[in-house]
Amino acid sequence: MERIIGIDPGSRITGYGIIDAAPGSLKFVACGVVKTNPRHPFSHRLNEIFEGINEAIQTHGPVVAAVEDLFMATNPRSALKLGHARGAAVVAAMQNGLLVCDYSPRLVKQAVAGYGQAEKSQVQHMVRVLLSLSGSPSTDAADALAVAICHANQYRLALR
Amino acid sequence: MERIIGIDPGSRITGYGIIDAAPGSLKFVACGVVKTNPRHPFSHRLNEIFEGINEAIQTHGPVVAAVEDLFMATNPRSALKLGHARGAAVVAAMQNGLLVCDYSPRLVKQAVAGYGQAEKSQVQHMVRVLLSLSGSPSTDAADALAVAICHANQYRLALR
Repeated sequence: MERIIGIDPGSRITGYGIIDAAPGSLKFVACGVVKTNPRHPFSHRLNEIFEGINEAIQTHGPVVAAVEDLFMATNPRSALKLGHARGAAVVAAMQNGLLVCDYSPRLVKQAVAGYGQAEKSQVQHMVRVLLSLSGSPSTDAADALAVAICHANQYRLALR
Repeated sequence: MERIIGIDPGSRITGYGIIDAAPGSLKFVACGVVKTNPRHPFSHRLNEIFEGINEAIQTHGPVVAAVEDLFMATNPRSALKLGHARGAAVVAAMQNGLLVCDYSPRLVKQAVAGYGQAEKSQVQHMVRVLLSLSGSPSTDAADALAVAICHANQYRLALR
């Protein structure tokens, strides 16, 4: 059994989702979002992301962080912003001694919906089904849970 | 008197430079670089930046971090990488309770060389003159010292 935190970083909203994975079994543990205040200076918002992820890790004790890659940004300015947010989240994971693995959005969608171009709503639906959730997590938390599921899939494949 | 750490972030080399500033006086304290190992996974390199800056701050005790802005990157991929590095450095400063201020490369060059398009070698030379250094710091450390000097200039202007 391995406890995984999936992270979907963003400068406004960073989603996280924690699952327990073992061969043939996925269990939901927790999920949530770290919302940063757009009125705060950007440096404060990065610190909010670091502290939010740090708190989620310290509360639930995952050993691996699966972080969504963001190589899709089209303009340098938004890529730079996203990079900052992702850097803050990755450092929070590293400072807690977690193994950090990166997964492309395509691979994440493929893992949960069987199709690399799946819509957000499909991802949300499949996360709910795969983890037997009674309600739908928010899209940001669902994306983060999807990244965690993607890591669990990769890990099982590696064991074969 | 205010102790300032200037930071010039980069995914390979992050320069830092620490000065003491008071109206009419600039004193060199220390400078150096955090080099990340290109063979390490990117998440480890971000952690190396965080820890390197954290160590410089804890050794020398600055109260303000002046960080060079990086809105010059032309392609999204390199902007994303630089963003990660800068995010790691900013979080290190925030976690140590420092005030974080951002300065554009143009403003930094203007502050030390009087000209926003100044060459690297001019910046290096002027940093040496302004801080009465006996030798030349490396270009990365000189850039970081220049950011610290830029903050000192802004601060003095604000006091007038």
